[in-house]
Amino acid sequence: MIAQRSQKIFEQTKADRLVVTAPDLRFYLTGFASSDGMVVVDDGGTTFYTDSRYLEAASKALEGSGISVKQPPKGGYISLAEGSKKLAAALSRITAEEYLALKEKAAEIVDCTPAFTEAMGVKDEGELAAIKRACKIADRAFEDMLGAFKEGMTENDAAAELEYRMRRFGASGPSFETIIAFGEGSSVPHHETGSRKLKFGDIILMDFGCKWEGYCSDCTRTFLFGDDKKHDEFKAAYAHVLRAHMAAKEKIAENMTGASADATARDVLKEAGLDKYFTHSLGHGIGINIHEFPRLAPKSCDILKNGMVFSDEPGVYFEGDFGIRIEDSVTLENGRVVSLTDSDKQLIIL
Amino acid sequence: MIAQRSQKIFEQTKADRLVVTAPDLRFYLTGFASSDGMVVVDDGGTTFYTDSRYLEAASKALEGSGISVKQPPKGGYISLAEGSKKLAAALSRITAEEYLALKEKAAEIVDCTPAFTEAMGVKDEGELAAIKRACKIADRAFEDMLGAFKEGMTENDAAAELEYRMRRFGASGPSFETIIAFGEGSSVPHHETGSRKLKFGDIILMDFGCKWEGYCSDCTRTFLFGDDKKHDEFKAAYAHVLRAHMAAKEKIAENMTGASADATARDVLKEAGLDKYFTHSLGHGIGINIHEFPRLAPKSCDILKNGMVFSDEPGVYFEGDFGIRIEDSVTLENGRVVSLTDSDKQLIIL
Repeated sequence: MIAQRSQKIFEQTKADRLVVTAPDLRFYLTGFASSDGMVVVDDGGTTFYTDSRYLEAASKALEGSGISVKQPPKGGYISLAEGSKKLAAALSRITAEEYLALKEKAAEIVDCTPAFTEAMGVKDEGELAAIKRACKIADRAFEDMLGAFKEGMTENDAAAELEYRMRRFGASGPSFETIIAFGEGSSVPHHETGSRKLKFGDIILMDFGCKWEGYCSDCTRTFLFGDDKKHDEFKAAYAHVLRAHMAAKEKIAENMTGASADATARDVLKEAGLDKYFTHSLGHGIGINIHEFPRLAPKSCDILKNGMVFSDEPGVYFEGDFGIRIEDSVTLENGRVVSLTDSDKQLIIL
Repeated sequence: MIAQRSQKIFEQTKADRLVVTAPDLRFYLTGFASSDGMVVVDDGGTTFYTDSRYLEAASKALEGSGISVKQPPKGGYISLAEGSKKLAAALSRITAEEYLALKEKAAEIVDCTPAFTEAMGVKDEGELAAIKRACKIADRAFEDMLGAFKEGMTENDAAAELEYRMRRFGASGPSFETIIAFGEGSSVPHHETGSRKLKFGDIILMDFGCKWEGYCSDCTRTFLFGDDKKHDEFKAAYAHVLRAHMAAKEKIAENMTGASADATARDVLKEAGLDKYFTHSLGHGIGINIHEFPRLAPKSCDILKNGMVFSDEPGVYFEGDFGIRIEDSVTLENGRVVSLTDSDKQLIIL
């Protein structure tokens, strides 16, 4: 039952009250999405306070969930902390303003960020099902999209076509701003999708994902729009990035640190003399947010656990020339990596 | 020049350094969108620190802007506050965690939220142009969408079609999660778009908007998918909501408070005995964020100024039965309301 999520985190904090305002954390605790509200947990149970715009829908959605739904008191959400001896709040997810106001109401404030990070890092069955669905939709949209590329279309046109497909296949929307880069734009890891037109022989880099029932998917593919026979360097680099991507899938295992996980792919690129072009980290956790715990990066001490979902996304970028990134959303199951997005990664030439 | 924005806010704070981490505030100060970075302003000028993923693009975008672009120091962004006597930060937009870390680095922290609110509330020419474009795209998509409704399509299908049109007409994406409600779903102000299928005689409520160059539009229309002759009550209520919407446009003027502005529409519904069904506020500021300063609400003391952009969105909701909302994005120009979204508001019967 979803109320167990808030009860578990509350118990870990050893506080007499837990207050949660951040929309993503509230969604995690209640399964109900809203831009406004506060979840309060104490010995009396879990209560979701939200304003009139959401009251009818929230009451209906949370019926029988063990979570009460109430309108905020006249004094506003912060007044709900009044008289707490030891108040738990996620200091990484409340504003300084909220913190200073809560401090007026409570004798002591303790940080429950670690409890949220730990709980949200490992996905339960329902969460995994939602992420898998978001991944399948992204895969299907990508495959369907391959037939839609046409010479002269802009990066924005391509993003519109891809997002339309994700939507039509069931997504509630993209999980982040779709990146589509044609040609030299691929050399910028966070290229801004624009009005560059597609030409024969262009490299296409697509970094995209969608949301299903509040959970994200994340995927990147790099391929060719026709082969103009000028791509020897690209093809050689592509093979190395793909080997790095696959090495991560083969070698990452439960209880590894984020740093060791990152090294599984980085070492392959190092052997090929390409590691200096791999300018970002290997991966990030994926869930309600597109970037969350754990981090797979050179200095990350995060420990990988079964049930975590993260990206495997090595890339190389040759400034002003071209870039390559190959990314799947993956999970750890029985100690090993299982790919959740899984469309073709052999070099596609349209 | 965009660097003047940060210089102006910095001068208002009377601090020796200003640090800004929130993505929307950084975008306001630099015009460059990124998920990661810190803007630092001091007597030496404005510097945008951002990580390797954005460095190439940011350097290019900010060339000649008067803003320097640098990589973050090894000690991380927070170390940039080291040694400040009086440090300005937006306490409503930094986390408690950031606040506590900044406190270690600076003798005193002052809140620059009011300076941002004031500056961002009144849009300059470039900002208005971006919002107008986002509004025109939303209008065009709405008009084009009217021909796409078909019996049996789901709310999600309709949202996909609408968002596709906004994208194709130039938007970078929706400015918030599109709300499409068929029939009784319209009675929930924040209805979650779902799999309900469209039937002859249904009420359709669409609350939608898009982003163009980082700025939002916001629009709501309520109309009928065919007239099954059972809509007398709906039609009567529609006329009242439209009168309330138009009254706001006629009566709202410069220097009015948000409360007086709200009353222009609420009074019309009160005369019709419908004010108890108008369960939310009349409007909210619109800009980089879909909800920002000012608030047009019963208790709002915010003062309306020329150049502000906000929504005019009265609505009535009959729980479990139906709802009506009519919303335009508007601006104050020469003391009076000018509508920015402007598609037909006379009751449409498809």
